[in-house]
Amino acid sequence: MNFQDKLDKIVAKNNSLLCVGLDQGEFEFNQKIIDQTYDLVCAYKPNFAFYEALGSKGWENLKKTVEYLRQNYPEIVTIADAKRADIGNTNQGYVKAIFDDLGFDSVTVNPYFGREALLPFLDRVDKGIIILCKTSNPGSGEFQDLIWEKVAKNVTNEWNKNNNCLLVVGGTYPEELKKVREIVREMTLLVPGIGAQGGDVERTVKAGLNSKKAGMIINSSRGIIFTENPRLEAQKLRDEINKYRK
Amino acid sequence: MNFQDKLDKIVAKNNSLLCVGLDQGEFEFNQKIIDQTYDLVCAYKPNFAFYEALGSKGWENLKKTVEYLRQNYPEIVTIADAKRADIGNTNQGYVKAIFDDLGFDSVTVNPYFGREALLPFLDRVDKGIIILCKTSNPGSGEFQDLIWEKVAKNVTNEWNKNNNCLLVVGGTYPEELKKVREIVREMTLLVPGIGAQGGDVERTVKAGLNSKKAGMIINSSRGIIFTENPRLEAQKLRDEINKYRK
Repeated sequence: MNFQDKLDKIVAKNNSLLCVGLDQGEFEFNQKIIDQTYDLVCAYKPNFAFYEALGSKGWENLKKTVEYLRQNYPEIVTIADAKRADIGNTNQGYVKAIFDDLGFDSVTVNPYFGREALLPFLDRVDKGIIILCKTSNPGSGEFQDLIWEKVAKNVTNEWNKNNNCLLVVGGTYPEELKKVREIVREMTLLVPGIGAQGGDVERTVKAGLNSKKAGMIINSSRGIIFTENPRLEAQKLRDEINKYRK
Repeated sequence: MNFQDKLDKIVAKNNSLLCVGLDQGEFEFNQKIIDQTYDLVCAYKPNFAFYEALGSKGWENLKKTVEYLRQNYPEIVTIADAKRADIGNTNQGYVKAIFDDLGFDSVTVNPYFGREALLPFLDRVDKGIIILCKTSNPGSGEFQDLIWEKVAKNVTNEWNKNNNCLLVVGGTYPEELKKVREIVREMTLLVPGIGAQGGDVERTVKAGLNSKKAGMIINSSRGIIFTENPRLEAQKLRDEINKYRK
């Protein structure tokens, strides 16, 4: 089953566009979060920076987390938030690490090197390749404002021959999100920046949905995993998102 | 001692602008290459993709390699070729991993998120922050041709307040290298793409030197480490580079 089919199934089953960002490096902590939220999400997304900060132990924790998900909740999509990119032959190493060793369903990549370099990722027809377009941080305009439209256009028209591409657009930029939606038609967008970073749920959802009232994976990390009741926060956010999908 | 001072010293001592790319994941292999070439180089640069492909074992090998260098050849510059970048607070994880856990002198970073996001790197006054500008791969023009000049200008004028910035420019693009040199004045450039990737040594060196006949770190990986006599290949390349510095 390819990435988009797997995603569509879990979005329907859990009635959820919510992704929980597992943004700390401990396995047992992740296990608890997952057991409390697995029926409320479509995806889990560990950001590699938090694991690498713990060295090879962190790498082991990352691997254990993906294995735990695969064994216990195989229907849920896993996203390696690694933001990798290098020249072509070198990317083979990252592809091997993320898909074959760790076993993720998808990965975030940086478009700076261009399509030619990223072919080792794009050639993986079974996986989701999630390309940074307009990122959620306050200073993302410095260079992206010159190229994010071109990134959205090129990915839609030239990179997506295997129907395995997605784009990242920050929920902190609803205007850009709306324009990206027009460019990419039905393509799924990964949207961080809701909650702690300041993105507004209603504006974000309304700007980013595709014609099927879906086509978004909306991430929240700190707003869920570091709260007193992660299940309650996940449920609230899932339901708020769904309110604007009607 | 800051990064540029350390680099200047070893460039003078070994009379070399050569960096050897440790682009495979085994520690013992690296040890042999290092022992054969330590007096011919200014830097060693492991690319993380080759280590991550081996999982947590690869991460251990990377750590052992840097430790081996620090203990036996502490004057030589170490470059973490990790091409990292994320939003601001997340980059703290990469900073911790690369500088504090692994102990590298410098790191390559991707400029896509802009200066604001990369401050956790740029704030490390003791380290070298090496920003991708024009990469060596054939398809690098897709987006970079719209922004590489702006990257060179912004890094020179706005990012480099701590005098710790360098830029990556591929030896496969000598025209762009020449223009970058004009923009960045004396700043050191990391130049991959010589040899196996097709960059010509004479054109590259002549295009990239600063007013002190230095200001370049010229990398070769496959053209040295996978040959029958790595020492001989390193010596030949160092000497050829030096021929055009006179």
